[in-house]
Amino acid sequence: MKERRTIRKYRQEDVPESLVEELLEVASRASNTGNMQLYSVVVTRDAGMKKQLDEAHFHQPMVTEAPVALTFCADANRFTKWAEAGKAEAGFDNLQMFIAATIDAMLFAEAFAEAAEERGLGLCFLGTTAYNAGEIVRVLRLPRLVMPILTATVGYPAEPLPELSDRLPLAAIIHKEHYKDYSPADIREYYKEKENLEINRYFVQLNQKDTLAQVYTDLRYPKANNERYSELLLQTLIGQGFLKGKP
Amino acid sequence: MKERRTIRKYRQEDVPESLVEELLEVASRASNTGNMQLYSVVVTRDAGMKKQLDEAHFHQPMVTEAPVALTFCADANRFTKWAEAGKAEAGFDNLQMFIAATIDAMLFAEAFAEAAEERGLGLCFLGTTAYNAGEIVRVLRLPRLVMPILTATVGYPAEPLPELSDRLPLAAIIHKEHYKDYSPADIREYYKEKENLEINRYFVQLNQKDTLAQVYTDLRYPKANNERYSELLLQTLIGQGFLKGKP
Repeated sequence: MKERRTIRKYRQEDVPESLVEELLEVASRASNTGNMQLYSVVVTRDAGMKKQLDEAHFHQPMVTEAPVALTFCADANRFTKWAEAGKAEAGFDNLQMFIAATIDAMLFAEAFAEAAEERGLGLCFLGTTAYNAGEIVRVLRLPRLVMPILTATVGYPAEPLPELSDRLPLAAIIHKEHYKDYSPADIREYYKEKENLEINRYFVQLNQKDTLAQVYTDLRYPKANNERYSELLLQTLIGQGFLKGKP
Repeated sequence: MKERRTIRKYRQEDVPESLVEELLEVASRASNTGNMQLYSVVVTRDAGMKKQLDEAHFHQPMVTEAPVALTFCADANRFTKWAEAGKAEAGFDNLQMFIAATIDAMLFAEAFAEAAEERGLGLCFLGTTAYNAGEIVRVLRLPRLVMPILTATVGYPAEPLPELSDRLPLAAIIHKEHYKDYSPADIREYYKEKENLEINRYFVQLNQKDTLAQVYTDLRYPKANNERYSELLLQTLIGQGFLKGKP
């Protein structure tokens, strides 16, 4: 697990359906809210479907190049249908249950990733799922009370493996007893290594920025984009029934 | 991983700080959004702190009985501080970045769980974190742009181990190419085993209900509670800066 890396290039080799199912079954042992398993996974293999998904993921090549894509969804629909069948009223159409379902879906997704990597597979998680959730809802035909959260492309890693990416020092993410907010000196210390990586210095120069942080905020995750996609996400959450419409 | 179970009772044996840190370091290799690591973890060992956390978790005994509790938080504060230090404007105070940070925090939490179990530890994830997020913000002194999502209690499992809990059949959670909504017959089929478990039949009888679903909707997760806690969660999200206040 210390050698984990995101795999974006795959060998031309299928991942058998039986293996994906075996790994999903192992992953379903992950903890979940009240053993309600408030998640579902949509498996994409069909070339036409991948093409449609690809649009929603801003044409990242992994979606069409990987043999399989899995979209992990927060799902309160199945539970609600079960409740209806059992003369019970679920009341899961709200934010608290959306968060519970998102937690369940993400623990399940990571458990899948761990099981898959143990079997020699490589994965790339695509955070673009929540950006274009509305589009993915349409493509995968997700009903009310189902929200796509995260997509993983899965395949056998092509050689050579990418380099191990950096991480912040552990001290940057741990707080003992209380959250200790970061002083300017802490920030300098914790981000020093990242800022000094050759590749990051190159990005700063290439984009004619003063700092690596500006590469993130001006190019990769600009405020205006984050706000625009937040508005879309809010609308999709309302549309899927997890939030009440704004007055 | 097939034998995983939630551990709620622990041996009287400490979990060394060095081991927790080693496991968190391994877990930090988990995938995360744009390698920004939008999460933090607060480690609780102090008895007084556990007592305060215990209230927020509805007095579940694991919080005070486990040697360690870890609260996994969505954290856009550290990144924002880094941006400020680098003359950049983060614009992470919105729903999209809250979801990205929640995804990061949950992949990290599950990666920790897998690493910890491999080393003989047992965990219980407490979904009550999001119910009383405001209270936990206060106890752990979480600043703006930090939200507690999930708490894990961690220790060495006491014998005998609890029984393996049930899971829905895999067919209930997988959808191929498109989401196939559940017919009443599907629901009957997928929940048959769960409804017929002796322990679940006992709960139905004990609570004088007609169905197991009613045990969930009337007693464990009633609609009125879900809605009340959703309102609290919304207020905490606004208070922590991830959502704009309602007009």
